[in-house]
Amino acid sequence: MGAKLRQRAGMEFRFDINARDGRARAGVIATPRGEIRTPAFMPVGTAATVKAMLPGAVRETGADILLGNTYHLMLRPTAERIAALGGLHRFMNWDRPILTDSGGFQVMSLASLRKLTEEGVRFASHIDGSRHMLSPERSMEIQRLLGSDIVMSFDECTPFPAGESEARASMELSMRWAARSRAAFGERPGHALFGIQQGSVYPHLRAESAGRLCEIGFDGYAIGGLAVGEGQDLMFEVLDHAPGQLPEDRPRYLMGVGKPDDIVGAVQRGVDMFDCVLPSRSGRTGQGWTARGPVNLRNARHRDDPRPLEEGCPCPACRDYSRAYLHHVIRSDEIIGSMLLTWHNLTYYQRLMQDLRGTITDGTLDSFAASFHALRAEGDIEPL
Amino acid sequence: MGAKLRQRAGMEFRFDINARDGRARAGVIATPRGEIRTPAFMPVGTAATVKAMLPGAVRETGADILLGNTYHLMLRPTAERIAALGGLHRFMNWDRPILTDSGGFQVMSLASLRKLTEEGVRFASHIDGSRHMLSPERSMEIQRLLGSDIVMSFDECTPFPAGESEARASMELSMRWAARSRAAFGERPGHALFGIQQGSVYPHLRAESAGRLCEIGFDGYAIGGLAVGEGQDLMFEVLDHAPGQLPEDRPRYLMGVGKPDDIVGAVQRGVDMFDCVLPSRSGRTGQGWTARGPVNLRNARHRDDPRPLEEGCPCPACRDYSRAYLHHVIRSDEIIGSMLLTWHNLTYYQRLMQDLRGTITDGTLDSFAASFHALRAEGDIEPL
Repeated sequence: MGAKLRQRAGMEFRFDINARDGRARAGVIATPRGEIRTPAFMPVGTAATVKAMLPGAVRETGADILLGNTYHLMLRPTAERIAALGGLHRFMNWDRPILTDSGGFQVMSLASLRKLTEEGVRFASHIDGSRHMLSPERSMEIQRLLGSDIVMSFDECTPFPAGESEARASMELSMRWAARSRAAFGERPGHALFGIQQGSVYPHLRAESAGRLCEIGFDGYAIGGLAVGEGQDLMFEVLDHAPGQLPEDRPRYLMGVGKPDDIVGAVQRGVDMFDCVLPSRSGRTGQGWTARGPVNLRNARHRDDPRPLEEGCPCPACRDYSRAYLHHVIRSDEIIGSMLLTWHNLTYYQRLMQDLRGTITDGTLDSFAASFHALRAEGDIEPL
Repeated sequence: MGAKLRQRAGMEFRFDINARDGRARAGVIATPRGEIRTPAFMPVGTAATVKAMLPGAVRETGADILLGNTYHLMLRPTAERIAALGGLHRFMNWDRPILTDSGGFQVMSLASLRKLTEEGVRFASHIDGSRHMLSPERSMEIQRLLGSDIVMSFDECTPFPAGESEARASMELSMRWAARSRAAFGERPGHALFGIQQGSVYPHLRAESAGRLCEIGFDGYAIGGLAVGEGQDLMFEVLDHAPGQLPEDRPRYLMGVGKPDDIVGAVQRGVDMFDCVLPSRSGRTGQGWTARGPVNLRNARHRDDPRPLEEGCPCPACRDYSRAYLHHVIRSDEIIGSMLLTWHNLTYYQRLMQDLRGTITDGTLDSFAASFHALRAEGDIEPL
């Protein structure tokens, strides 16, 4: 891959929209490390691993890109160490694109002794209490050390709920940090920097944030501050206007979303990229996601069921095992239970994204969404 | 595999010795489910899974046969349930041979409220306290329900240390149970029943046990009651005579052994089969086994080391990752650490068995053993 990568090193980050259906778009983000088909779901590889999966298996599910967490990696094993070892791609054995978040969200949810100032956030590690600082400049430095392909600007994820003045102050801080992120990022051909829209649930603040980001200029635009407890109805209300406030010709990334029905609704509203720990985290607790909705494999009704979790699914969990086996290994706390259900869930998510891309291309997204909701309303297959 | 299996259903269990070097033998055990190259190491799949591995990966390491634990499986998910689901092979997606132990050892080490009588052992489950019974007849029934290819007779693993009269009484009980196991097993073409020699560290008791087993007649013979705290010196003393007391033309299986140097020494003394949780269990705690001995990947000296755990090893841990990465994921308690180190350790063990088979065939086992010990004496590669 080294030679191929060098050959393409001059290549720019590029986004091509190939089809539209309503507000939805299907396209391709081209990067020197490979193409990202959109709408795209990015599995989360927090600590340089998509939990319970080897990277080859993650790729087999159809993933074009992973997400890495700046906060976790800066603390352990540290960005400097990863850089000395050849960068995050080599370190974790994933040679396709990686998007890294800025650390801004997780420092506020995981770290202790936080002190937020105009400069950035000082905090203590949740692992060993050691003291650190994150700022736009430090976040850009860490993401450069990691070798991230898509870098996120450093922001404050406005808590929910937030009154309008609180939301404005937080958004304005994030916009000042966005400008500093842009300046610190500099020019890095083949690497992209995304800005993050804030503004909570206030359309005019969202519009103001989008305008400020466009002035600064980014390679892509994220919608931040959602999936933080506001619920799907309110999230969709925001998504009825937020994507349209962002540049038409750039990827739009809804951070931290979500459940399959969140994704379908957001794609219908013009979102191109997603990430969420849900498929991997819920897999580790015995929840399998299917076209008929979530299935709790811990439930005793699966104990004697020879049928696969999901008929027709090509993943190893469904191809090689019964619900009875999955029930047994989940109840026995066997690692293979986490492995198989994570594999299934990531497969289900990627198949959903493939369906979304295909039906946008065919102009049949709305009818796909209708049958998606109808099948989920039926619920899981009847017990034997 | 179904058709192929049916086609071979009439096939007998067979053992062919193809080469000898000193007391060591290299051969093949033929079963309807495939060949087992000996000397063989059997990875342990206690609860219908080799922990942290998919069966396809276990096979890739070179394993011809797995071991399943009767005690664990009878309690959860139960032998009757596995039988209703098509047997253990289908349940756990492993279509090659499976050897099951009798449950005798683990009921004494794991269960509570044990009551041992001539009939068998009554006990309470370590999982939910439910009451159960194991006897020669019940153990044969469970192993038949599981569909085991190599069934172990029900015995009492004599505790160590044991005085001579205690060892004799225990051995004699095991021999009565061996006769009942043989009677209960009946005739099952293509399936094998192994007897288990006891007698602790007393050569005349071992000889008496071997004689009694041969009178009963088994398809293979295990050496039981070792690797229970007696240490390698004493174990090798027993192995200086025990294998020779067993029939020359049948497989000899040393139960629960062991470390790589235990295996080399036992092969030199005429043992053909082994099982041990060590490579998988120690992998989950961060220990990697190499030709230079065990390596503790938790140790900080690996933190910045870009080199593989073991140069030239074809496993994914060594092929795709640095010691620094393995250190990181083990320290971070990431599941991929267990996955990679288990994969490596099982690969190392199977490569060792391949080397043993190859050098026995070439008549160079002793010089192989000498270089095996010399390389281990050198220890792990120097820190960078």
